Amino acid sequence: MEQIEVSTRGHQGFHDITDQVQAIVSRSGVQHGVCFVFCPHTTAGLTLNENWDPDVRDDMCIGLDAISPRRPEYSHDEGNSPAHLKSSLVGASQFVPVAGGRLALGTWQGLYLAEFDGPRRRQVLVTVMAA
Amino acid sequence: MEQIEVSTRGHQGFHDITDQVQAIVSRSGVQHGVCFVFCPHTTAGLTLNENWDPDVRDDMCIGLDAISPRRPEYSHDEGNSPAHLKSSLVGASQFVPVAGGRLALGTWQGLYLAEFDGPRRRQVLVTVMAA
Amino acid sequence: MEQIEVSTRGHQGFHDITDQVQAIVSRSGVQHGVCFVFCPHTTAGLTLNENWDPDVRDDMCIGLDAISPRRPEYSHDEGNSPAHLKSSLVGASQFVPVAGGRLALGTWQGLYLAEFDGPRRRQVLVTVMAA
Repeated sequence: MEQIEVSTRGHQGFHDITDQVQAIVSRSGVQHGVCFVFCPHTTAGLTLNENWDPDVRDDMCIGLDAISPRRPEYSHDEGNSPAHLKSSLVGASQFVPVAGGRLALGTWQGLYLAEFDGPRRRQVLVTVMAA
Repeated sequence: MEQIEVSTRGHQGFHDITDQVQAIVSRSGVQHGVCFVFCPHTTAGLTLNENWDPDVRDDMCIGLDAISPRRPEYSHDEGNSPAHLKSSLVGASQFVPVAGGRLALGTWQGLYLAEFDGPRRRQVLVTVMAA
Repeated sequence: MEQIEVSTRGHQGFHDITDQVQAIVSRSGVQHGVCFVFCPHTTAGLTLNENWDPDVRDDMCIGLDAISPRRPEYSHDEGNSPAHLKSSLVGASQFVPVAGGRLALGTWQGLYLAEFDGPRRRQVLVTVMAA
């Protein structure tokens, strides 16, 4: 298992970690298998989405805020329940198949750390297994 | 890693790929392990849900449209940001344990490609690993 | 593959299964690898979230009900379409890396069975693989 550190900027946003995860896959020497990526935080997550037009990530922030706004009924006194819910909706982990030593992502897919309660220093754990 | 091709119908819908994935598990010869299923697209996803009453899938389309509608604040000029957000919410991958050479799905569980911006030709990547 | 049984209480709620999953990891003897946890039901799911303040789980129930309410347009005659949608949003599975024989969870992370249509008796399937 290897570890990536990400210092997030702003309260919410998507941070591209594709190249860092690919570097770990390359170092592992695994040619065919699966790469498992895990976020050990409860107000952040991991997601795959478009790596081309940055407007997509901006729109996802708008959409997630509309889905999980602050609600007067919430009682958690840190006030970050919207971030906890976003984390469970997007998910704390992603796996990607490995073929020929490369992450078998689609042409337009990037792997992102999703920060929902930043800025913070976040960790990502990466395990590569041969098939 | 094996590949499935799915030609989706309509703009949004759920396409049952359970039998195709089971066929890959059977060909792999793996008796006990985990089957990893991955969708390399950013406006589609994979999900497990009820395989019996098709009304459940229709209701999920209604519910997802209510959660992720078109929003005037969106700026991505392809106009398919609602589909990108649905993809991140439902997720681009699923794993299913394998026991006795079979996907250990619940009685009412089917594995679906979820199309959110179709019709399109979609790929699904399947890797089976022994435990 | 090992199995956990959970008898859920109430219509909706989060049931901590972290210790039961850790016990399976310990019995497996795997020191470094990944633990795969799977829920074979379509109106329940699995999620990772804060294990400290129970208000977070209460707030997540409030937020999920706001996202996936009963809708007059739904046609599935069991009336539990909101639970089916929650299951696809939160997801039916989680994986957690294993390091030194322990689930490599964050300090504040617990693993929860999310019941959306209870009370019911639920199963959880656990597979541990060495890396």
